[in-house]
Amino acid sequence: MGKAGLPVSPLAPARFPDLPVIAGVDFASAAAGIKYQGRSDVTLIRIAPGSTVAGAFTRSSTRAACILDNQAKLAQGGDAPDGAAILINSGNANAFTGARGQASVDAVCAAVAEALDLPQGRVFTSSTGVIGEPLPHERIVAITGDLARGLDAGGVADAARAIMTTDTFPKGASATLADGTRIVGIAKGSGMIAPDMATMLVYLFTDAAVPAGVLQQALSSGLDTTFNAITVDSDTSTSDALILAATGQGAGAPITDLDSPAGRDFVTALHGVMRDLAHQVVRDGEGATKFVEIAVTGATDDADAHRVAMAIANSPLVKTAIAGQDANWGRIVAAVGKSGAQADRDRLRIAFGDMVVARDGWRDPDYDEAAASAYMQGQELRISVHLGLGQGARTVWTCDLTHGYIDINADYRS
Amino acid sequence: MGKAGLPVSPLAPARFPDLPVIAGVDFASAAAGIKYQGRSDVTLIRIAPGSTVAGAFTRSSTRAACILDNQAKLAQGGDAPDGAAILINSGNANAFTGARGQASVDAVCAAVAEALDLPQGRVFTSSTGVIGEPLPHERIVAITGDLARGLDAGGVADAARAIMTTDTFPKGASATLADGTRIVGIAKGSGMIAPDMATMLVYLFTDAAVPAGVLQQALSSGLDTTFNAITVDSDTSTSDALILAATGQGAGAPITDLDSPAGRDFVTALHGVMRDLAHQVVRDGEGATKFVEIAVTGATDDADAHRVAMAIANSPLVKTAIAGQDANWGRIVAAVGKSGAQADRDRLRIAFGDMVVARDGWRDPDYDEAAASAYMQGQELRISVHLGLGQGARTVWTCDLTHGYIDINADYRS
Repeated sequence: MGKAGLPVSPLAPARFPDLPVIAGVDFASAAAGIKYQGRSDVTLIRIAPGSTVAGAFTRSSTRAACILDNQAKLAQGGDAPDGAAILINSGNANAFTGARGQASVDAVCAAVAEALDLPQGRVFTSSTGVIGEPLPHERIVAITGDLARGLDAGGVADAARAIMTTDTFPKGASATLADGTRIVGIAKGSGMIAPDMATMLVYLFTDAAVPAGVLQQALSSGLDTTFNAITVDSDTSTSDALILAATGQGAGAPITDLDSPAGRDFVTALHGVMRDLAHQVVRDGEGATKFVEIAVTGATDDADAHRVAMAIANSPLVKTAIAGQDANWGRIVAAVGKSGAQADRDRLRIAFGDMVVARDGWRDPDYDEAAASAYMQGQELRISVHLGLGQGARTVWTCDLTHGYIDINADYRS
Repeated sequence: MGKAGLPVSPLAPARFPDLPVIAGVDFASAAAGIKYQGRSDVTLIRIAPGSTVAGAFTRSSTRAACILDNQAKLAQGGDAPDGAAILINSGNANAFTGARGQASVDAVCAAVAEALDLPQGRVFTSSTGVIGEPLPHERIVAITGDLARGLDAGGVADAARAIMTTDTFPKGASATLADGTRIVGIAKGSGMIAPDMATMLVYLFTDAAVPAGVLQQALSSGLDTTFNAITVDSDTSTSDALILAATGQGAGAPITDLDSPAGRDFVTALHGVMRDLAHQVVRDGEGATKFVEIAVTGATDDADAHRVAMAIANSPLVKTAIAGQDANWGRIVAAVGKSGAQADRDRLRIAFGDMVVARDGWRDPDYDEAAASAYMQGQELRISVHLGLGQGARTVWTCDLTHGYIDINADYRS
């Protein structure tokens, strides 16, 4: 069973991966009793002096207080000559809490800054859970000293568990480059956080030495093909956050140019870890029974390919057909049509796995409904759409829409 | 039970309304055996010489052949000096059927034109049902003569039934103005058409005398607040169509200026009929148990208000919370935030019915969860969001997202 009492997703990895230690990053988790009982719900992460920090945050216009605070701090630059820290709590999102929200953020940041002897401007926070309830920040402040004393380079797996809300499994991924550079990430997110919303939190750490501006560029350039390429139900949280820290304490030479061989290797590995975590979030999609890759090619440009892929991935009709193991390519055609992207009905080619089901504006002459239905029984599906117009391409990932989703979101709080 | 064997929606009107006869419009329906057995599936509508015709069609880029044909014909103008006709079949959408699709449309139009002695350019068609299957148009052609002989001014109720697919009740509405002018409409649509998609078809008739350009303007000006203001599941069909015909055979004086008193009365009545039919489509939303009005005010402009209202109406999180009778205003805040519209978290006011639940960036101090939960038990709900920024306003209508929706769309075809 997951932390919230839900059964573990059938799409979960077999086990939490062994994650390497990142020199210069320490973790501590503990129970503050914010909402959940009998489990850790607060994590403190300390990042060594001389590190750099980058971030990406929700575009919601009703962002939570901690998001606005993180953005303001990162706008001052990503250098952390004296070190930095991240404090994450689950159980309460501190969102839509009026002026009190920022006061809670300030109180937590001040406590962490004092405990770790850091400038308050280098303390970042995340809150996830119920919204519209005041954050009992005093419970976090009360255990800050204990957390600081418990910091440990091996605490990453505990942290991955402490940040869970309705997640049914903890999410972690890593990569080690040929030069010894290490990248580690943890994430939470599973569609939505009962009883409120779909917060996704991601923390990435590397021992590479990367100037702050370059680090931000490495992070930003990977978003569109990883975390912005997944959807469970099209809902965006007020609190989505991704923070990446680079300590420079690893074996690799400093990376100052992402177009250098070392820079390219780093970016490829970083984006691989990001994609792995993004896929894990989809695999924990509420009620999900199938992991679906939707690959769009032949679009006028990449943006149009993304539009088409997301229209398919977010279509309740497509998602329920997949849940019903129905090779319903007509719903794909309809989703392409409504996407707003340039498309020509008579050039479309649609395939399920390797099986072409439609081409040139009509069902493929060799289409075999029995074979297509057999394919749809699988747990891992790939739907390809070729628009036949240009070179634009984009792949996104989603899951099916099942009775389990309704159960969790309609029935959970009551 | 509805035609497709589904139970009648709990939100259905008590009975089909008595619709007045429109002088100059005749209906005939019959069984062609296109897909369904033991029921009418083809309707022929004859519109008298001297009428004018207007239309509105899906914006999908994968439009069905009949849609492209209707649009091309209306692009030549809306006058019908020799009369016009509409032929509608259910059971097959003739969508994504390649070049054969247009050939089927041509065959049907030629047969109707011959049977009614009309120019083929004034014969409009609609097809709704399964997509990607060739339309057996010869079955329609074979009964065209019978249909022509059976035309009757009183056949509108039968027509409302013949065009149903997964609809669980036939949809009709009417208005009679003080000067005796009559407006009648029928519609079909219920989310989606099993096993394929969400086609909505609407046919409106009036005995008013209205020049074609003015008629089109009267129709177009009402779309944003009626049929474009409803959503069951955000999916748009390849085949949505609305046709309005004015025969000029009624008691009223010709309407040449929509800003005249008579013009304004006509537009108000027409839009009222359109809104009534639009609401009936939502009330037949697949699996719907609640009819929900979402009223957004205080937006920067009407377009932003529409964006916010639709983001709320299409949010699976909001729709499942409503199904669960959960007064989950946090999900409303999140939907506002993701809408892309201008919004200020600290100016938002959210109400369920007359109950203000949140204001000024936080839960209302007088918020009473028990009272809010009691309100959510109702079958007809109103959610109001005031953005506090400007004068933009828009109201949309939707339904909840239930296990019934998954049943119909995941399990129906298998």
